[in-house]
Formats: sequence, C-alpha cells, structure tokens
Amino acid sequence: MTETLLAAKASSGLTFAQLASHLGLDEMCVAAMLYGQASASPQEAAKLCDLLGLGKDAVAFLTRYPIKGCLDPVVPTDPLIYRFYEIMQVYGLPMKDVIQEKFGDGIMSAIDFTLHVDKVEDPKGDRVKVVFCGKFLPYKKW
Amino acid sequence: MTETLLAAKASSGLTFAQLASHLGLDEMCVAAMLYGQASASPQEAAKLCDLLGLGKDAVAFLTRYPIKGCLDPVVPTDPLIYRFYEIMQVYGLPMKDVIQEKFGDGIMSAIDFTLHVDKVEDPKGDRVKVVFCGKFLPYKKW
Amino acid sequence: MTETLLAAKASSGLTFAQLASHLGLDEMCVAAMLYGQASASPQEAAKLCDLLGLGKDAVAFLTRYPIKGCLDPVVPTDPLIYRFYEIMQVYGLPMKDVIQEKFGDGIMSAIDFTLHVDKVEDPKGDRVKVVFCGKFLPYKKW
Amino acid sequence: MTETLLAAKASSGLTFAQLASHLGLDEMCVAAMLYGQASASPQEAAKLCDLLGLGKDAVAFLTRYPIKGCLDPVVPTDPLIYRFYEIMQVYGLPMKDVIQEKFGDGIMSAIDFTLHVDKVEDPKGDRVKVVFCGKFLPYKKW
Amino acid sequence: MTETLLAAKASSGLTFAQLASHLGLDEMCVAAMLYGQASASPQEAAKLCDLLGLGKDAVAFLTRYPIKGCLDPVVPTDPLIYRFYEIMQVYGLPMKDVIQEKFGDGIMSAIDFTLHVDKVEDPKGDRVKVVFCGKFLPYKKW
Amino acid sequence: MTETLLAAKASSGLTFAQLASHLGLDEMCVAAMLYGQASASPQEAAKLCDLLGLGKDAVAFLTRYPIKGCLDPVVPTDPLIYRFYEIMQVYGLPMKDVIQEKFGDGIMSAIDFTLHVDKVEDPKGDRVKVVFCGKFLPYKKW
Amino acid sequence: MTETLLAAKASSGLTFAQLASHLGLDEMCVAAMLYGQASASPQEAAKLCDLLGLGKDAVAFLTRYPIKGCLDPVVPTDPLIYRFYEIMQVYGLPMKDVIQEKFGDGIMSAIDFTLHVDKVEDPKGDRVKVVFCGKFLPYKKW
Amino acid sequence: MTETLLAAKASSGLTFAQLASHLGLDEMCVAAMLYGQASASPQEAAKLCDLLGLGKDAVAFLTRYPIKGCLDPVVPTDPLIYRFYEIMQVYGLPMKDVIQEKFGDGIMSAIDFTLHVDKVEDPKGDRVKVVFCGKFLPYKKW
Amino acid sequence: MTETLLAAKASSGLTFAQLASHLGLDEMCVAAMLYGQASASPQEAAKLCDLLGLGKDAVAFLTRYPIKGCLDPVVPTDPLIYRFYEIMQVYGLPMKDVIQEKFGDGIMSAIDFTLHVDKVEDPKGDRVKVVFCGKFLPYKKW
Amino acid sequence: MTETLLAAKASSGLTFAQLASHLGLDEMCVAAMLYGQASASPQEAAKLCDLLGLGKDAVAFLTRYPIKGCLDPVVPTDPLIYRFYEIMQVYGLPMKDVIQEKFGDGIMSAIDFTLHVDKVEDPKGDRVKVVFCGKFLPYKKW
Repeated sequence: MTETLLAAKASSGLTFAQLASHLGLDEMCVAAMLYGQASASPQEAAKLCDLLGLGKDAVAFLTRYPIKGCLDPVVPTDPLIYRFYEIMQVYGLPMKDVIQEKFGDGIMSAIDFTLHVDKVEDPKGDRVKVVFCGKFLPYKKW
Repeated sequence: MTETLLAAKASSGLTFAQLASHLGLDEMCVAAMLYGQASASPQEAAKLCDLLGLGKDAVAFLTRYPIKGCLDPVVPTDPLIYRFYEIMQVYGLPMKDVIQEKFGDGIMSAIDFTLHVDKVEDPKGDRVKVVFCGKFLPYKKW
Repeated sequence: MTETLLAAKASSGLTFAQLASHLGLDEMCVAAMLYGQASASPQEAAKLCDLLGLGKDAVAFLTRYPIKGCLDPVVPTDPLIYRFYEIMQVYGLPMKDVIQEKFGDGIMSAIDFTLHVDKVEDPKGDRVKVVFCGKFLPYKKW
Repeated sequence: MTETLLAAKASSGLTFAQLASHLGLDEMCVAAMLYGQASASPQEAAKLCDLLGLGKDAVAFLTRYPIKGCLDPVVPTDPLIYRFYEIMQVYGLPMKDVIQEKFGDGIMSAIDFTLHVDKVEDPKGDRVKVVFCGKFLPYKKW
Repeated sequence: MTETLLAAKASSGLTFAQLASHLGLDEMCVAAMLYGQASASPQEAAKLCDLLGLGKDAVAFLTRYPIKGCLDPVVPTDPLIYRFYEIMQVYGLPMKDVIQEKFGDGIMSAIDFTLHVDKVEDPKGDRVKVVFCGKFLPYKKW
Repeated sequence: MTETLLAAKASSGLTFAQLASHLGLDEMCVAAMLYGQASASPQEAAKLCDLLGLGKDAVAFLTRYPIKGCLDPVVPTDPLIYRFYEIMQVYGLPMKDVIQEKFGDGIMSAIDFTLHVDKVEDPKGDRVKVVFCGKFLPYKKW
Repeated sequence: MTETLLAAKASSGLTFAQLASHLGLDEMCVAAMLYGQASASPQEAAKLCDLLGLGKDAVAFLTRYPIKGCLDPVVPTDPLIYRFYEIMQVYGLPMKDVIQEKFGDGIMSAIDFTLHVDKVEDPKGDRVKVVFCGKFLPYKKW
Repeated sequence: MTETLLAAKASSGLTFAQLASHLGLDEMCVAAMLYGQASASPQEAAKLCDLLGLGKDAVAFLTRYPIKGCLDPVVPTDPLIYRFYEIMQVYGLPMKDVIQEKFGDGIMSAIDFTLHVDKVEDPKGDRVKVVFCGKFLPYKKW
Repeated sequence: MTETLLAAKASSGLTFAQLASHLGLDEMCVAAMLYGQASASPQEAAKLCDLLGLGKDAVAFLTRYPIKGCLDPVVPTDPLIYRFYEIMQVYGLPMKDVIQEKFGDGIMSAIDFTLHVDKVEDPKGDRVKVVFCGKFLPYKKW
Repeated sequence: MTETLLAAKASSGLTFAQLASHLGLDEMCVAAMLYGQASASPQEAAKLCDLLGLGKDAVAFLTRYPIKGCLDPVVPTDPLIYRFYEIMQVYGLPMKDVIQEKFGDGIMSAIDFTLHVDKVEDPKGDRVKVVFCGKFLPYKKW
C-alpha cells in the first residue's frame, strides 16, 4: 500500500511539504504516514486520499495503528540511513553524558517527539539540518 | 583511559560545558574527545589535561586518531541510546524521502558534521533538543 | 561492584524487602540499584551503604547514571528470564492490540514505570504475580 | 487467516472485551486465539466464528495446536513491544533475585499462566497496567 | 570455581556416579551442581565438599541460585552437544506433533524434569541412552 | 507437500501411532517422514499414500533424500521445542562429562539413532518421557 | 526490473563499456544504474532504454533515488565479492593508519567517489586492477 | 605486540613510507606486518626491529605466519573502514559483472595481490586513491 | 531452474557419473553446474540439455556466471553438510599449521581447485573419501 | 597451554611430521592434540612432552577430553580456513547429491574420520591436497 501511496504522490506532482501544508502538519509527519509508520485521523486520511486521488482502502491503511520499525536488517545498509546509525556509534555515549549532565537520569522520548528536516544554504556546500525534539522522561523511583 | 578522564572530570566538578568554554569548542565535541571518539589538537589536549590535572599519557590518548564506534552490541541496549536507534527504525525511510526531495540523491555527511544538545524548558515537562547538521554530499557520476 | 554489594547483602542477612522498607522504596527498585540498573540519591546510597557496611566507593557506584541493559546475549538463556521473553513472543502482538484498543496509538513507558513482584499462595502451587505499570504515551503529531 | 479474523472483527465493530464476555474468557486470551498463538476448543471456535460471520476454515484454524512465537526479528522493533524487552534488559536480573528470594530456585511458568491488561485512570496521564501471573515451578532434584 | 570443583573431583578419583550415590542423587544432577547449573542444599553441598576436600567458598558456590545457560555461542560447536541441537533441527517439529497428539496443547517442563544417561551394551557398538522426563504442562485458558 | 500430507492425515482421522503400526515403524519415524525430515522406502511410501489417499507426487516426496533441518530461526521460538534447547543450555556440559566418563572421548550418533515419546501417567500430572538412543562413536586416531 | 535490464542488455549484445561510451560515463557507473544502485538523469535513462529497447517503466526505475545496499547476507558469500571483504579484514587497520598518516583524522568519501576496473595483461596471468578514488573528508570540530 | 610496535614507530618519528623505503617494500605492506596481518622474512624483521629499537620478541612476532582477519565485529564500525564495506554493498554486484565481462568466470586473488594508497591533490579537496591489483584466477573445470 | 534440471535428471535415470562421462568432466563438476554454482561452456550446456531433454532456457542458465554460495543460513543445518563445517571447527587451526609448515604463508585456492568423491569399500562399513586439491597461493609482498 | 606447546615445538625445531613419526600417528592428528582438539593416551602424551621438554601440566592437558570447536566467529576470517568454508558454500549441495547417489541417505562421519594433508609438486605451482575419509553412516529407521 505504501508503494501505491508513493506512486500516487509521484503522479500528483505534490511534495511532502505541499501535502503537509494542506493538513496543517509537518512534512516528516506526513511522510511517516505514507510509509505506514504513523497513523492519521479519519479526517487527515480522507483529505490526503482526496489530494492523491485514492479511495477507501488507502483511508483504512492510513488510520490503522501500525506495527512500526520498517528496516529489515539490524544494521541498515542504505548509506543515507546508515550515517545516522554511525553517529550513534561515534557520539552515542558522549551525548548520553551531555544529556544526563543537563537533565539527570532519564531519556528523550521517541513517542512524545518531533523531527524536522531543513536545508541550510552554504556557499561551501548546502547542509542538512535535522532536529529531534522529545520530552525528557526522568526514571521513576517507587 | 576514558575512565581516568571521566573520573578526573568528576572530581574537578567541571561540566562538559565549562570545559568546552575554556577550549572554544562545543560540549559535545569535548565529550567525544574524552570518550576517545574524536581527536584533539596538541594544544587542546594540553589545555584539557591541565584543567583535569592529568599528565602526558592523557595528552597522547587525546591526540591519537582513534578507532571509532564504541557500542559493542549491534543493537544498543541502553534506553537513552536505543531511542535514537528506534527513531531511525520508525522515521528512517520517511526522512530519506524528505531529504532527497529537498536535495536530490545523496547523503548527510557524518564527518563534516556537528551535533548540539539543548534543553527546552516547557511547563508540561522539559524537552531534549538534539540538532544534527552535516554537509549534503551528492552522489558523483563518472 | 555489583558482586561486592550482593555479597555484603548476603552476609548482612537482610532481604531486599527489608532493605527497601528502610529506604521507603519497593524491593524491586532497591534490587535494580544493587545491580547498577538504577541510580540512588546520595541519601539513599548513604543509608544503603550504612546498612550493608560499605564505604565511599559503593556510594559513588550507586549514585552514578548507569549504562543500562545487563544481559549480554540478545536472547537471554537463563530460564527464569527467558520465560518473560517467550511471553512477548507468544502474547506480544495480541497484547499490543488490546492496549491500543483501550488507549489508542502509543506505548506503555518503560521509564515512568513501576514493577512489583508478589507471591500468591495457592493450594495447587503458589503463583508468581508480576505487575508492570507504566504511563501511557500517545504518539505526538506535529 | 489472522488477517481475515482481524478484518472480520474490525467490520463487526466488536472489541476484544466484548468477544471475550461472550465466551467467558479474558480479552487477552481471545486476542491470542485470533493471532494464532493459542488454541480454542471446538465450542469456543464455533461461537467466535458465529460472532464474526466466518466459516469452517476459521474454526479449523482456531482449534489447531499452533507453532507459537510470532515475532520474526530476535529483538522486536515495534516500540510498544520493545519496551517489554527493554524492561527485561534493565530489570531482569534484579527481578530474578527478588523472585528467588521469595520462592527459592525455580521459574514462573509461561504456560500455566495468565495475562491481564488494565487502564488506570490518572490525572497526570493514564497508566497501562499489565499483570503476569504464572505458577511457580521449583527445580526438581533427582 | 567449576574448574576447582572438577580438578578436585579428578584428583579424588571419584566418578560422578560415586559422588551421586553418597548424596542419594542421580549423577547428572551432581554434574549439573559442579557446573554451577543447579543449586545444592546446604547439607548436600557440605557432603560434596567433604568428599572433594574443599572448603567454605565451594559450599557457598554450590548453594547459590545460579544464572543458568552455560554455552556461549548460540549454536554450540562441541560435536557431542551439537548432535542434540541437530536432533531438534531434524526431529523437533515431528516430535511436537507426536507429543501434542498424545497430550494436547502444551509443553514438557524443563524445570519439573529429570535426565538420565545410560550405557546400552551392544555387540555392534555400545549405545548412549538419554532419557528426558518432564511434567506435561497444558496451556491455561483464562 | 508436508501441509498436504498433514491435512490428509487429519481428514483420515488416523494417529501417527496407527499409521506407524501399519508400516511396522515407530510413530516418531513416520512423523519425521511426513515432515520431510526422513526418507521412506518405495514400499513404505506407497503404503502410507494408500492409507492417506494420496498419489504419485506424495510418493516421490516421501522417497527423496531431503535437505534436513526445518527450524528457521537459530534459536527456536516455539515453547515446546525451545525447552529442549534450554535443557542443552543448562545440562549440556554436565551431560557431556557424564557420557565421557562412561564411554571415553566421542559422541552419541544423531544418525544411527532412535527417538521415542511416551506418556507416563502420574496422579500429580502426567509426564512426557522422551528417549534418545544413539550409537556411541569414539574419536578415531590415525 | 534489474533482471529485465540485464536480460535486455544480454540480448542486445552490448557490453557495459559500449553502453557507457554512448552516455559519456564509466562502465561501472552504468552497471550500478542497471543494478538499481545509482540514479540516472532523465536524459541518460532515455538513452539507455533506447539502446536496450525498453520503455517508460525502465526509465522510471532508472531515475528514482534508490534504497542502496544490495547484498542480503551481512558477510557476502559470492567468492568474487568476498575477496574484497577479506581484504578489509586483513588490510583494513593498516590501510587506516597509512591514510591517516597521509591525510590526518578523517575518511575517504564513498559518495563523492569513483571506481574503475582495468585489465592488466601479464604473461604470468592477467591481473584485475580496481581503483577507488574518493574525496578526503576531515572530521570537523565545533 | 602490535601496540609495542606502533608505540616504537611513534617515538621513532618514522612514517610507514620511510620504514618501507629502508626495506624496499610498499608502506601498506609494512603497515600490515606491524599489525600482525603479514609475515616478514627474518632479514626484513631484523632490519625493522633495528630501526624501531626492538629485540628478539618483536622479530619472532614479525616472522610467524599469523591468523589473519583483525576486525572483531562482522560489520566494521570505524567510519573509515566501514566506507569500504559500504562500497561493496552498493557497487559489489555491478563490479562483479564488469570484471566477469572483461575476464570470464573467476575472481581477483586477495593473496597474489597488492594494495597502494596515494594522495591526489585537488583544489576542491584532496582525494584518497586506493589501488587494488590482484591476479585473475579463472574457475577450473575438472 | 535447478529444480527443473534435477527433475529432468531424475526422470532420465542417469547418474551424475554417467552425465559426466558424456562431457569428459568429473561428476562433482557436473553436479555443481546443475546447482547453478559453476558455469558450463556453450557446448557442454548443449550436450547436457540434450541428454536431459531440456531447451534454450536451461542452456542459458547453465552458461551464465552465477552468484555463488547457495546455503542460506550462516551455519548450515543439513547434517551431511554440517559435518564438513564441524571438521573445520575442530581441525581448522591444526590443518592451517600443517599446511603452512609444508608450504609457507599462503592458502589453498578454492578457485583453481578440484573436488572428488569416492566410495571406499570396507567390511566394517564403507567410507566416504573426499579429496580437495587446490593450487597453493603464497602471499605476495610488494 | 596450546601456546606453551606450540612455543616448545618451535624451539625444539621439530615439525609436526617428525613428532608424528615418533608416536606412530599422522601429523594432522598430532597437530589437533597440540591445539586441544583431540585427546592423547597417557603414553602418547608422555612421549610428546618428553620430546618437547614439558612437564605434568602439559600431559594432563593433552589427555583430557576437550570441549571442541576452536574458531570463535561463526564465519571464520582467516583466509586459509575461510576457503574451506567457501568450498562448502559453493559445492556443499552438489557434493551432498553425489555422496547420496553413491551411498543412499546418510552422512560421512566427522568422528570415525581421518584427515591427511599432502603436497603435490607441480611446475605450474605446487598444489595442496587434503583428503577427508570418514565412515558412511546411513540413517536408521525404527
């Protein structure tokens, strides 16, 4: 179904950013819905399918609660995605220390969480800026 | 040696941010040096070891070109670090599409790259903000 | 250090429940501290080390923010722990559906979370009752 | 066949709890049957298929003795299910000690076993309560 | 400690069968104790250490509740042990069917369980006879 | 083809034991043939297909020399089969020692080998008895 | 689609080098396009499909941004490809040292990168010459 | 011993290229000897140890036939080395086709093989050039 | 296609040895061709397909340069093939030493290589004799 | 202990073949004993230790029944040993068919088994000949 949705998006000529502005959401959030990694509300699904010229099956797919985690191999092989895995290999423990120095023992939520992608123009070569922002969850004692 | 450096930091009472301001670097970059994941220049190493009360061995450790990648298990088990792995499982392919829609076929460099951690105060619970910013590298044809 | 703490507990003759009642915490929470999987406050660490006849090193160990996840093999081999892994293999997807039917798309937090163990006496053989209770975190849209 | 059963349940509009009350069983137990992880008696299967408007094939599927364990990857990637795996990584050994302190050397059965899911309303955010209850099996000597 | 116990057994010249007859147990059960896979009662441990000329440390080792599962690699490499793994690869599913045809849906307990090894003399070559005997545990419904 | 054979057996209403008595073989051996883990002679295959109402294709399947080993995941997830894997994790090295104490350096053959399943009635709960019996093969020197 | 493209190439009788000279590209670059590991521009895709007698579907396949990494098993089994993996096992760390001695701390880009294959005739047996050439990327400090 | 050799090289201030010119070998070949991945002749070992101020133990280490393959994890984590693994993931099958189109069915030897590293100066950023050159070995028929 | 070729061989009643004698090759070499692990010349393929009553598709399959390595799981499960893996586990390092004592540092080629299978009749039980014969390739220095 | 034995052999200047001729065994068999993969009789161990100038500890090591399988990684990385693994990847299934065509359903024993290494002189390059010879074990029916 993801293939159908992506093909419909390709023939519509709409970007993720354009789809997102119709729904009042971020482009990353819409992309996650098309990949079956996030669920849409019935209204969001209806609007999306309208824009993409798709029917009831697509609405049903977009509104269910998906089994998440779409990368088969444990270590991803696609170079773009692997770089993020490598960043954790290299900077994971230092980042853990910096976060805990600022916040105490706990984690950044991956659920109460947003993710933005921006393009930073630069004469030496444009830069990709990716911003993760999640609620800090302190470990509970009991 | 990382243990020695972290113990010296702990007894000095200095934060990563304080160490970093003495070197004119970001706290993440200094944390990566202490974890043996980034190399310092001889001057940076000397200044750091001065601040931490450490000698020549520590300077040599900080200036070598390290073998990077410090997480033994392929899938990390520490909950704080795992959340970043999970984000790639869930949002990896959607993010790849959004980046490529903005930039074309290529990747975000993990080498010509910076990483910042900020605390966003929020009455409903503070938030962790992590900003990745790397040069876009387009695939070359030949 | 975990070995030292467990040996000190063994020679003190105190149970986890007895240690916990001195600290006003649950026995599971105290057991997690001794195993280096949860951090104690300075006062809790001092009281614990007092009860177990241990010194400053133990206090430092108990108050640091640990790297969590203590089971080396990906699939645990100890039969007691494996049973919990098997329960997820068998009941994981059904439980996901039941939780989502009650709560919507999201997860049970493993951080804002408590875990109790009780003994249920039964003439046909006593039963182990394990109660997991974590905050429900709905997926955020943005 | 699981897909057929879940689709029939979706179009019937019945919840697991409603199906379960017709059979005198717990909702988790019925969900496990639909996922092919538990076997129904012929009467239970007949009643279920009646409620869902399904025929003989579905009855045969529900009454066979299944090969259990439905999660392909060794470490699950779905965030809801992963949290339970993480709880065992973090609290597995402490819990083993607490159980053995209460019961002696042995395990909690995953076969003579029940599993309940409850919603605990809480103004700071509702909580998911999951109760595992299994017979204690002491190791036999011979 | 297992090495110490096995070395003591080797210099004592006693077989597992001889040790076992002093304790009123099976030789397999005693061998499992020496390998730290089963726990002895204080009296059993005292008697064993007496026979092997060992002291308090050995008694403590023999009476604790061990973390079980002693084979590091997931697929064992030792040829004697591998053959049992291979038997499950080849006969595992057929045996599951035969057991379920006789008993219904459930398992053979590996906890309420005994294991005997016998030598069957045969002019064409002696045979190893291994008898597994465990309580049948039917799946509970709830 | 295994599915066809098992379906034919199910509709015939014959047990493995009944099929086996027609062929003068053990039920485990017949089950292994149906699962494609053992090869039948042409006469045995013909008789079996006769009893199950199947034709030439089934005879060809039953008489070929199969690629053996039918469990995909390295560590089996089905609880019934996993228990046998766990027994080797816990009792593998002790059993190796007991066998070698009785027989010398060598292995139990998994080829010149039989496997029986029996039901032992017991008022406290019936027991599954599984008997492995294989030729002892001593290591050759040369 | 890769199979269709390779079959069309086979029946056209054209080599990779001949295809490449029509496009003004290297043969390796064209081979990567046919394998779905590199993207073509619309003009390149049109010319290629013209030469191979293929239509719009093939053009669409050649111009998309592919998920890269085509070898399923983590360690490749094909002997030709394995040899390159082995070279990294044997010469990886020495090569890292030599590169860093020449360039400082950083990596060779696999994105801003070319790869050539040449045949070196030699009376003792021809030799395969493979030249990797990628931009050096120094680690950034911040 | 590799650590001793690399430390001696570091304090000697000699580069791999300088060491290599004294032995009439390539710098990569000398680096492989220091990493225990290639064996030196007794004369080469003597000359190297002379230059580095080391004794008999180092000579013995350099002349033995080593167990090769020094990277523990199956997929390397160091970013410099990983890039070569990624190149095979992306270009492995296309390269196999190009080599076989030029040479027929066979492989490039990783034994009768040389490896050179060069620095290519470039105003847009220097480039790393790595040249692999191995004998082509055609598959034998018999 | 391998299945088609093996089925055609089965209905032809010809053994690998008979096929091989028509082609002037060894039976192992012909078996490898049918399994798609070795390539035939156009004449060999034509003759084989003639003998097996197959057409152009089979000729094309037999003459292509295959991706080699046909065993999916890393550790093979079929008992016949596993024994060869076990032999390397047990005798691999000793054999490496014996080969290097006779030949120096290098390997036996698996490409310039032949493999024969013979039956050695023996009153105590026939024996399988497998002969590997490959060119010795010494490591090159440069 | 293996290191001690190999060092003693190195300083004695004796080859495996010379050691073996003193014991009336094959050199491979003696090499396996030194690597702790085969057990020696007390007389063989005494003679070996005499020749190598070693004492009681070495005799005890050589006569125990070892845990076999000495290669840590599942897929071996040493190039000499890997080639044998690759041969099974490429020729494993064809060889299985050829052996079964000659012998029926069964395996070659890896226990009642010998292994010889010979040097075949050849003007085009010497060849390594490795002969495996094991008893054929037919599958038993019961």
